[in-house]
Amino acid sequence: MQTVRLTLVYDGTDFSGFQIQIGRRTVQQTVEEAIERVTGVFARISGAGRTDAGVHALGQVVGFRTESLLPISVLARAIDAQLPEDVGIAEAATVDANFHARFSARGREYRYSIANASERPILDRKFAYHWRSRLDATRMHDVAQEFAGPHDFAVFCGSLRGRDRPTSTVRTIYRIACWREGDRVLIDTAANAFLPQMVRNLVGTLIRAGMNQVDEAGVRSMLSGTGARVPTVTAPAHGLCLTRVWYDSPGEDF
Amino acid sequence: MQTVRLTLVYDGTDFSGFQIQIGRRTVQQTVEEAIERVTGVFARISGAGRTDAGVHALGQVVGFRTESLLPISVLARAIDAQLPEDVGIAEAATVDANFHARFSARGREYRYSIANASERPILDRKFAYHWRSRLDATRMHDVAQEFAGPHDFAVFCGSLRGRDRPTSTVRTIYRIACWREGDRVLIDTAANAFLPQMVRNLVGTLIRAGMNQVDEAGVRSMLSGTGARVPTVTAPAHGLCLTRVWYDSPGEDF
Repeated sequence: MQTVRLTLVYDGTDFSGFQIQIGRRTVQQTVEEAIERVTGVFARISGAGRTDAGVHALGQVVGFRTESLLPISVLARAIDAQLPEDVGIAEAATVDANFHARFSARGREYRYSIANASERPILDRKFAYHWRSRLDATRMHDVAQEFAGPHDFAVFCGSLRGRDRPTSTVRTIYRIACWREGDRVLIDTAANAFLPQMVRNLVGTLIRAGMNQVDEAGVRSMLSGTGARVPTVTAPAHGLCLTRVWYDSPGEDF
Repeated sequence: MQTVRLTLVYDGTDFSGFQIQIGRRTVQQTVEEAIERVTGVFARISGAGRTDAGVHALGQVVGFRTESLLPISVLARAIDAQLPEDVGIAEAATVDANFHARFSARGREYRYSIANASERPILDRKFAYHWRSRLDATRMHDVAQEFAGPHDFAVFCGSLRGRDRPTSTVRTIYRIACWREGDRVLIDTAANAFLPQMVRNLVGTLIRAGMNQVDEAGVRSMLSGTGARVPTVTAPAHGLCLTRVWYDSPGEDF
């Protein structure tokens, strides 16, 4: 028996998210089917991040156990050859039997891409959210720093339908950065874990900050649950990408 | 009557090329229909480059004449709003009545993108040609220099079916550069004009150079029509993008 860790890249456009759902095309089911075609045995995979429908990944991590005796590089190539064009294996390794892609993960990093120009993004329209009005990326970065550290992000948690209710809504953001590259505004954020739709809700708030509609004090009152109740705005899924998951200490990265 | 120049961006994946064809979805027809919806009058557009099915554009240029009295910025926004998600207007200008997008063009520049890694390109699979074996980009660049300058590129001309036969197959390449960026190999080339499928045939030859199967002498004999007759290899359309068309002297650019 070997425990396998796969790093996946996928274009989330045509997937109904990562997690398996009856009658829907999901990343989990697609990868499980590819594994079964290679090994002849069904294996349940676990994933580090349960990306929503339309969310992409450059560094999703999944794990599974298999009786296959194939060397890991051969096994990974065989599984990759069974995958459709919108999902692929970037890295593969044999890991300790205690490894669990979700529970062993020490952190996740996401990137959100905004096409901030009057022209629609054409070539990367499925990977960037189009926002016409000029955003103040410096303001967004400054306001974003209010999210850094441990906070109760309950107000930024989306619908929990079909998901396990988290035992706590406290999460620790290690890093959140926002900057402009030409007509793109990019937001990178890393945390120990994120609540469902939390990144998209943070981004929605930061876009409002970039329009000078929310400031540091506004974010603080949202986080503390005091002050006027501000409804969160959820940025669309297609601008979001799970870029990295790590299993060692975050101190080694940040 | 005003003469309008539009710079177009498109994802060529779902178009049967630029040029109008009965019963096919083409860029030309799509843009002509959008213009007609805005102005109420059919206008034939001409394009600087007749990109093949699957070829993309960041800087295609088209021109048309219209009786519309709308200011150019308003006209362009109105047309853009009528275009589907895979084609858009990047720039618009009113130009001299003598302007012809194709015949006034002094040069065209294309980029070809190769994903040169064992992993399949997932997120940009429609914009990069996947070539697994390691390519020697320095060799490719050196061999490519044999193409620079004026040459009879007849041997690199693809099928002329459905196209006007060119009166001459001599073209002048102003610049051709090939380099590696991580696991991407990029080829940029600018010429006064290109024959049908010429860029894709040059790229096919350069990939063979990158595999050490063709050298400078081989290219010279292909261009001169002497030596062993080497069949050309046509690189697939989806790696190709028309990046720029210019109407002033190439000396100002290179």
